[in-house]
Amino acid sequence: MSLIVQKYGGTSVGSAERVKNVARRVARWKAKGHQLVVVVSAMAGETNRLIALAREVQPHPDPRELDVMVSTGEQVTIALLAMALMDMGVRARSYTGGQLRILTDSAHTKARIVSIDESRIRRDLADDCVVVVAGFQGVNEKGDITTLGRGGSDTTGVALAAALGADECQIYTDVDGVYTTDPRIVPEARRLKTITFEEMLEMASLGSKVLQIRSVELAGKYRVPLRVLSSFEEESEGTLITFEEDQNMEQATISGIAFNRDEAKVTILGVPDRPGIAYQILGPIGDANIDVDMIVQNVSHDGLTDFSFTVNRADYHKTLKLLEPVVKHIKARGVEGGDKIAKVSVVGVGMRSHAGIASSAFRTLAEEGINIEMISTSEIKISIVINEKYMELAVRALHKAFGLEQPT
Amino acid sequence: MSLIVQKYGGTSVGSAERVKNVARRVARWKAKGHQLVVVVSAMAGETNRLIALAREVQPHPDPRELDVMVSTGEQVTIALLAMALMDMGVRARSYTGGQLRILTDSAHTKARIVSIDESRIRRDLADDCVVVVAGFQGVNEKGDITTLGRGGSDTTGVALAAALGADECQIYTDVDGVYTTDPRIVPEARRLKTITFEEMLEMASLGSKVLQIRSVELAGKYRVPLRVLSSFEEESEGTLITFEEDQNMEQATISGIAFNRDEAKVTILGVPDRPGIAYQILGPIGDANIDVDMIVQNVSHDGLTDFSFTVNRADYHKTLKLLEPVVKHIKARGVEGGDKIAKVSVVGVGMRSHAGIASSAFRTLAEEGINIEMISTSEIKISIVINEKYMELAVRALHKAFGLEQPT
Repeated sequence: MSLIVQKYGGTSVGSAERVKNVARRVARWKAKGHQLVVVVSAMAGETNRLIALAREVQPHPDPRELDVMVSTGEQVTIALLAMALMDMGVRARSYTGGQLRILTDSAHTKARIVSIDESRIRRDLADDCVVVVAGFQGVNEKGDITTLGRGGSDTTGVALAAALGADECQIYTDVDGVYTTDPRIVPEARRLKTITFEEMLEMASLGSKVLQIRSVELAGKYRVPLRVLSSFEEESEGTLITFEEDQNMEQATISGIAFNRDEAKVTILGVPDRPGIAYQILGPIGDANIDVDMIVQNVSHDGLTDFSFTVNRADYHKTLKLLEPVVKHIKARGVEGGDKIAKVSVVGVGMRSHAGIASSAFRTLAEEGINIEMISTSEIKISIVINEKYMELAVRALHKAFGLEQPT
Repeated sequence: MSLIVQKYGGTSVGSAERVKNVARRVARWKAKGHQLVVVVSAMAGETNRLIALAREVQPHPDPRELDVMVSTGEQVTIALLAMALMDMGVRARSYTGGQLRILTDSAHTKARIVSIDESRIRRDLADDCVVVVAGFQGVNEKGDITTLGRGGSDTTGVALAAALGADECQIYTDVDGVYTTDPRIVPEARRLKTITFEEMLEMASLGSKVLQIRSVELAGKYRVPLRVLSSFEEESEGTLITFEEDQNMEQATISGIAFNRDEAKVTILGVPDRPGIAYQILGPIGDANIDVDMIVQNVSHDGLTDFSFTVNRADYHKTLKLLEPVVKHIKARGVEGGDKIAKVSVVGVGMRSHAGIASSAFRTLAEEGINIEMISTSEIKISIVINEKYMELAVRALHKAFGLEQPT
């Protein structure tokens, strides 16, 4: 008998019929003799509906009150799922975040979990109940309702699994696992049976939106075995995220090709190469709450260098405007950039010990006549910025070059 | 400076626009220097929508889970109203029943309030906040969410006013007070400036559905001054429900004419007049959860009497069926009844000291040629059952006979 935490997203519980489907799946796991804690999101579309309603009344809704409001979305779903389970003869009991004292800080709409009182869950599990928990929400010390921000239900699932010492945390989504790359671009893309925690972090942050990066980090911190599964396919075992590299010893060097076309690049030309320059450039960007992803600076010539970075495409024009006074102040030559770029990344823990990966990747792109605009690397990934129009070609070529196709 | 509890029903908060209207009204009271606690219901239609959704998943929804679900309706409204107030520059904070520890028993879907922890409200009031509270809901000792049943928001309002020792509890509805009778039947019906608690109880239970009878009882128990007002009209002072009869010394003897056509009458003929007979007749009715309203039994002749009572019209046929074996068992002559009846009641505290009221009422009906089928009286009301088709005529005639018209 295992203790399993399952999490179902908004699409999986998007209608009464789908809630019943989830209940049937939970009931089957229960019938196998497992103890089950099930975390659910709001029905698809409900959170957006509530936010729109709030904005009708207050254009910039008060964060505390917005949390009171949107947290009702999951509260409806937990009751529905508990009812559906009971209708199938399965004992079930639902709880809001507040009822389980999922204690968070007071950062409304983006709170972080501090602790969970799991005593009530343990009592219900001992009582042969399936415990259904509202994802995405908690309470602060004063008892005010908080929410964890978009995708927070994954975080609730992982946090509960950590608090309970669950044997596995299963995240059900609309895909059946983590793939070597997006099958819509490369039909031969292969589902990974396992992926290491670090690889998953890179894949998630690079745009493979299977899991919230925050929940992956939390799983890593508490070493919660995390499995991504499809809520619509029954057969697949999904992808297990592991923490021991040696489990992957015989795996290919490269796990996958991630990509992202939500970014824009900005380059400040002829920057005087002196201490504090990077801060002078990025300070105003950070102050404006614009996230910077890649940062590249090469060696200087004659005391001048070019300083490049990427931002979210939606922040591109704002960024250019913010840099105008900076360029004057630091006496740089000028600023240029482009929002027709894509970032393609080769990810894999095996890369650490294989120096040749980078050159293979560059050769592959050269053979396809694709020009490289920026390069940035970490221990387990190489990210390359190219012209957006070559993105799919680059992904396909790299996927093939590293032998990631389905075995035939 | 007064402490005022206001309660707004589902129609008053039925849209974002209406929530803003309520906020404007609350803001005006606040601007006069009063402290305000505002109780709101779910937006009109929301509770029914949620119940329908629950039934899609479980035909007879589990009461505990149904309460988890429907309580979200008020939770949305409290956040909306708090936001609307803040948008007008008024400090506001919202609370669910659970957050205020509105402690109830565990009778899900029809719980009764045990106690309220008002310390948090007092702190917020001292902090110059309008406190917005979800009506209709509480928590039991285990922390499970409970609801108070239909119309429970009125009860929340009165209970809060009692706990806080409020100067007045204002119930905003879609009518601007209690009338001498229904203005749709008698256009000359007059709004009462005051009505005594006992009269209100009779009016409410007799079908003047302005207030939940339960909230009126609670107001009586704690002597909470209760005012019924329109949420759509600004000018009217509504009707104040008072507890001191002498405030009404100069009022007319009769306060109003109530009526009800939701009932059916049943008569058991030739009942042997011996102890225990009434119980033998009504026992099976009560066991079947059928509410009995009027009960009439007259003196017997030759050891036989007729025993009559009224039930809700929806229970009429079930009642007849239940009585078949009873009639045989007690050896009565038979059973008869009718569901084309109406009950018209003359209500007023002044009746206690005016023996002539009853005869005036009977004479009025006689003059209109209306036959009386049953009569039942209490200290402050006379109820008369007549043929349904004469109901409006009877109400108009009695309203006129007791001089209840608008002063011209």
